[in-house]
Amino acid sequence: MLIRIINPTITEKWESEKQKNYQLAANPGVKISVVSLENGTVSIESYRDLALTIPGICDKVLEAKLEGVDGVIIDNMLDVGVPVARELMHIPVIGPGEASMRLAATLGHRFSILTTIESLIPMVEKQVDKCALSSKLASVRALGIPVLALRDDPQVTLKTIIDVSEKAVERDGAHVIIPGCTSLGGMAPKIQAGLKERGYQIIVIDPLSAVMQIMDILVSLGLSHSKLTYPLPDAKDYNWPGLSLFES
Amino acid sequence: MLIRIINPTITEKWESEKQKNYQLAANPGVKISVVSLENGTVSIESYRDLALTIPGICDKVLEAKLEGVDGVIIDNMLDVGVPVARELMHIPVIGPGEASMRLAATLGHRFSILTTIESLIPMVEKQVDKCALSSKLASVRALGIPVLALRDDPQVTLKTIIDVSEKAVERDGAHVIIPGCTSLGGMAPKIQAGLKERGYQIIVIDPLSAVMQIMDILVSLGLSHSKLTYPLPDAKDYNWPGLSLFES
Amino acid sequence: MLIRIINPTITEKWESEKQKNYQLAANPGVKISVVSLENGTVSIESYRDLALTIPGICDKVLEAKLEGVDGVIIDNMLDVGVPVARELMHIPVIGPGEASMRLAATLGHRFSILTTIESLIPMVEKQVDKCALSSKLASVRALGIPVLALRDDPQVTLKTIIDVSEKAVERDGAHVIIPGCTSLGGMAPKIQAGLKERGYQIIVIDPLSAVMQIMDILVSLGLSHSKLTYPLPDAKDYNWPGLSLFES
Amino acid sequence: MLIRIINPTITEKWESEKQKNYQLAANPGVKISVVSLENGTVSIESYRDLALTIPGICDKVLEAKLEGVDGVIIDNMLDVGVPVARELMHIPVIGPGEASMRLAATLGHRFSILTTIESLIPMVEKQVDKCALSSKLASVRALGIPVLALRDDPQVTLKTIIDVSEKAVERDGAHVIIPGCTSLGGMAPKIQAGLKERGYQIIVIDPLSAVMQIMDILVSLGLSHSKLTYPLPDAKDYNWPGLSLFES
Amino acid sequence: MLIRIINPTITEKWESEKQKNYQLAANPGVKISVVSLENGTVSIESYRDLALTIPGICDKVLEAKLEGVDGVIIDNMLDVGVPVARELMHIPVIGPGEASMRLAATLGHRFSILTTIESLIPMVEKQVDKCALSSKLASVRALGIPVLALRDDPQVTLKTIIDVSEKAVERDGAHVIIPGCTSLGGMAPKIQAGLKERGYQIIVIDPLSAVMQIMDILVSLGLSHSKLTYPLPDAKDYNWPGLSLFES
Amino acid sequence: MLIRIINPTITEKWESEKQKNYQLAANPGVKISVVSLENGTVSIESYRDLALTIPGICDKVLEAKLEGVDGVIIDNMLDVGVPVARELMHIPVIGPGEASMRLAATLGHRFSILTTIESLIPMVEKQVDKCALSSKLASVRALGIPVLALRDDPQVTLKTIIDVSEKAVERDGAHVIIPGCTSLGGMAPKIQAGLKERGYQIIVIDPLSAVMQIMDILVSLGLSHSKLTYPLPDAKDYNWPGLSLFES
Repeated sequence: MLIRIINPTITEKWESEKQKNYQLAANPGVKISVVSLENGTVSIESYRDLALTIPGICDKVLEAKLEGVDGVIIDNMLDVGVPVARELMHIPVIGPGEASMRLAATLGHRFSILTTIESLIPMVEKQVDKCALSSKLASVRALGIPVLALRDDPQVTLKTIIDVSEKAVERDGAHVIIPGCTSLGGMAPKIQAGLKERGYQIIVIDPLSAVMQIMDILVSLGLSHSKLTYPLPDAKDYNWPGLSLFES
Repeated sequence: MLIRIINPTITEKWESEKQKNYQLAANPGVKISVVSLENGTVSIESYRDLALTIPGICDKVLEAKLEGVDGVIIDNMLDVGVPVARELMHIPVIGPGEASMRLAATLGHRFSILTTIESLIPMVEKQVDKCALSSKLASVRALGIPVLALRDDPQVTLKTIIDVSEKAVERDGAHVIIPGCTSLGGMAPKIQAGLKERGYQIIVIDPLSAVMQIMDILVSLGLSHSKLTYPLPDAKDYNWPGLSLFES
Repeated sequence: MLIRIINPTITEKWESEKQKNYQLAANPGVKISVVSLENGTVSIESYRDLALTIPGICDKVLEAKLEGVDGVIIDNMLDVGVPVARELMHIPVIGPGEASMRLAATLGHRFSILTTIESLIPMVEKQVDKCALSSKLASVRALGIPVLALRDDPQVTLKTIIDVSEKAVERDGAHVIIPGCTSLGGMAPKIQAGLKERGYQIIVIDPLSAVMQIMDILVSLGLSHSKLTYPLPDAKDYNWPGLSLFES
Repeated sequence: MLIRIINPTITEKWESEKQKNYQLAANPGVKISVVSLENGTVSIESYRDLALTIPGICDKVLEAKLEGVDGVIIDNMLDVGVPVARELMHIPVIGPGEASMRLAATLGHRFSILTTIESLIPMVEKQVDKCALSSKLASVRALGIPVLALRDDPQVTLKTIIDVSEKAVERDGAHVIIPGCTSLGGMAPKIQAGLKERGYQIIVIDPLSAVMQIMDILVSLGLSHSKLTYPLPDAKDYNWPGLSLFES
Repeated sequence: MLIRIINPTITEKWESEKQKNYQLAANPGVKISVVSLENGTVSIESYRDLALTIPGICDKVLEAKLEGVDGVIIDNMLDVGVPVARELMHIPVIGPGEASMRLAATLGHRFSILTTIESLIPMVEKQVDKCALSSKLASVRALGIPVLALRDDPQVTLKTIIDVSEKAVERDGAHVIIPGCTSLGGMAPKIQAGLKERGYQIIVIDPLSAVMQIMDILVSLGLSHSKLTYPLPDAKDYNWPGLSLFES
Repeated sequence: MLIRIINPTITEKWESEKQKNYQLAANPGVKISVVSLENGTVSIESYRDLALTIPGICDKVLEAKLEGVDGVIIDNMLDVGVPVARELMHIPVIGPGEASMRLAATLGHRFSILTTIESLIPMVEKQVDKCALSSKLASVRALGIPVLALRDDPQVTLKTIIDVSEKAVERDGAHVIIPGCTSLGGMAPKIQAGLKERGYQIIVIDPLSAVMQIMDILVSLGLSHSKLTYPLPDAKDYNWPGLSLFES
């Protein structure tokens, strides 16, 4: 099984770590290949970033299609580009945001999502709503750390995550925590342990593992998204500054 | 008052009609200027079309910002690009989709939206949901005519709209009808008259007029979208195939 | 365009200020005339006040109908009497409550309404619900000042409004504020400025302006409420202590 | 136990039948007294009728208060005047609409309400929503017979009710039926029998019995509505065409 | 009228007090008989307890059926066993949980439920949701006292209830309180008085009285649950460790 | 990985087929063992059947716990016994109902569930609601065939499923179909093919595969349900007709 991970940014230095983390999260026999965008932004924290990112994702989706991979994961908690990628392909396309939330909804009464910066809260709440999961949401809380600074001091980041998780549990009634940034991939066990030390028995979901495993299911079962919901668009004239993306 | 209408397609031949229709819909003293995209698609009927459209909208939004217009309308019923444009600007940005639905919600018990093709129904339903208006929605129904064919035979189009409206009223309980394509701009009175002939006293909302007038309100009142909901994104490195869109 | 403002109280001294504020809020060419009720209460803060107010509104609505105005605004945040006035008339009838909330819903993630006294909170929450806007509501908070005391000390009132707004922003996540009393008409800029001084970039909506401008739209577009939702009632026998309101 | 039934119309000829039907619905030891309004309409089928009715209800509520009854039922399926009566009194006040719906919600998966005329459907749907019972509602359907004509031909009325109930069961999935007009008081057994003949085992709720019995509970238990939700309004100046209703 | 109270535990010592409290809550002429389970647990505080309880309830339901009682109350706030009992019987079956909540919903803006221990909160919230009453819920709060310890020190229990109620009122906006354990039967007046002493005018519902009285209504009116919602199951082969429960 | 499948009925003849189907659905290296109940019913189609089934499931859950399996699947679309099993265990417990619905929600706009008999529809709708997935539900439709008759004539069953699916697609707008009975395990491809022949490109989810694969994820990731939502119940006295289930 060949799974393409699209890092929907131009930050290529993340590739090796994502390669490692996704490979760790994958079942044996799954081959992972991470690609970054040629065109896009260094991180995704606004609608502007989405705008500059989605065409680059299309490029990579079509590339993946030609190469004949079995599934495509778009490595971003807002599941950026998933709908368009689903339109363009018959093979499964998913993102870690929805994958984590669906698992969280199954495992506990209510979940909280920890996003990076305050200004993302409305976007994340809208995404939860789009997945029709608002009644399972305890809260969205922000760490107050931008994506690109999350690794500046791993200890500070970890402590902040645990502090904010504690608030989500104590004040919002969260039973499950989703660290809402794929750069936090692999940290779930440490967060869970940190919360346990403070006396909280909380499930923490690793979004990378969640999405990798859900992808495995879809490919194994020959399942994919509905082409009634995401029909292949007809060819259509268009102008584009870069290379031609689609047959017109 | 100077209002920029962004035709979010590359179909420049629509410009003159849109110019005329929006000017008709505007109050005296409002100056309308319509621009089309350099980069984009000929019409918008899929997530792929959105992907190819939104960066082109950003170009035109920034252009409008430099030119010092008072407000920006993005001429599309899915309100494509409105969130990103709102991030980039402090002046009001709106689309005819939400504008029509908010008015419809005020005027009657439930409304129906007539979209062009069947495959758009889930996208339109999601948009209604995003506006938190689902409980006011009677139905979304499709005309079965692609955007670019809506003017092939105006009589057929009109008859189809009236037929589908009648179904929305009879079967779904619609009290208000929104013709869900801006290419139908100006047709509301004919639709309302056609329904009256068949015995239905139905409010039909013209999306162009709705959005033009709501824009007028916002500019007049010095109101705009919340910059907490749509904060100006920080400058950030990016790659882009065309001209540089944003200062990085 | 001739717009009748119904002050749905017997407090005639408010007329001149309302006349001034609504005229300021109106576009050029709009003629405003404010009338108060002959029968009603000095202010509206309970269901009892509604009971005593609505028949008096009917009087004024029918009067307006005879005089041939173009639209009727009922100057009260609970939109008291709007449904009955819509039944009785074909011309547009709206109130500042729904008008403000629809605009607020368009402009930001969630809004808060500041009502006057604690006991009104359930009534305002029910009104938000009736407009199907609960999912856009951050909170309803009370100023703790009765309507008739709002002008006793304008500085205290303004400070209280800013204090309560701050709570709505900090604790409830409001991005938009609606001062929920028409006696606060015209204060929106001061409230917004006061919040800015404290570091909050919050949209504050002036209900008078909102309703005046939405009315302008409806009249300009020849739009009105659905007569399926608000059908003209059949003539019917009735007794009434005052002058005959309706043809029986 | 002394229960006052307010017939919220001026149609006094209904009194004797209501007296009989409510007495039949009451437990032994309950004394029923029916009063009609001096001021009001002959039947209630619009917001206009509500406007002309509610002050007359206030009169009768205050009268009941002075006479020292134990509870007040307002005999109308829209529960007209219940909120204001609750404000004015500490003793329980209820209407047959909410009473029937709460019982129906307890007894089956979904219920349908049969109202008299088509134009009442939005009003009844709003009432269901106000009681937060929309998710238990199968449908609101109209008989197509105005209140005052319901008794013109009892056989036709009964057949129509059974026909419309059958549609509610077959098409809307109703498991419980509420005949939505108090003039249908006492007919529930016949409707249930008629449906049984056609093969449907449907619960039909008699609104008069429902409200009479819920009132009995409230009085027996010393329970009443919350005075936080319905606080006694402060005295306040007012003008009124008839006799003085309230101490000012 | 003969009403069977099923104490759904094996704690027989509760019988005499329940007999007394339910008899007090019943109208004259109602005969109460309390039975406990032969098989079951000493109290119900988990899904495990439900599992061990429901078959024992079936025994008692079938026993009641043979004895020809008029109605069955299952004395537990989670309404354990009500659905299965409704399937097995045509006579009315209800529990104090739903009965209290339906009354509370009628009487005030929002209600809070006080459950015994923290771990029951998700179960109670799910029950509220199952009754479609979530929008009327202010909160579920726990007393932090297990069922079997509620009577260890009645003064401590009462004080705790009043303290937690105060929080529900102050922080969650509750207007009505439901003491969510039938072992608190009869305490409502003391709780209401204690809250009054602290300045809160709060309705407190006694679940035993609520359910006893709703049962009285159902029997009096000849009403019962819908057999479409709860159809009598067909006979079917089964194995069972104890005596044969059902004809197979 | 050792997964225990609990067939929650006494119909042991199903074991071999379930063993085969689940093994087929499992990844390599997963060892499946199917057990049936000693005490329970031959099939599950009512609340009575649930009552007689859940204690038998507890037996098998505790057995599985002692044997040290890695996860427990309860093979029933109503997910019968899942909450109690989750309380009793720390290892993952899931059912095919929720597993299928979560996948369906991810893959398309709305899904329909095909249950066996009409009388199960309210139970299935309640289960969807309990999972907070009602807004993703197109419909629940019944095949009109009891579980035990599903294999009487496989061709008739298949044709019926395809017919009912077509209705779900055409009338209810389903984009994804869930055959809602585990006895239909393995039939998804045939159903999907049959629908394709009729021109419908519909995703059909195999519940056995869905639940087997979600279980694989949970075990692989070391994830399980929240013990705050499903806390281990304290030991407690109880009586039970069969062997002692729990340490008291």
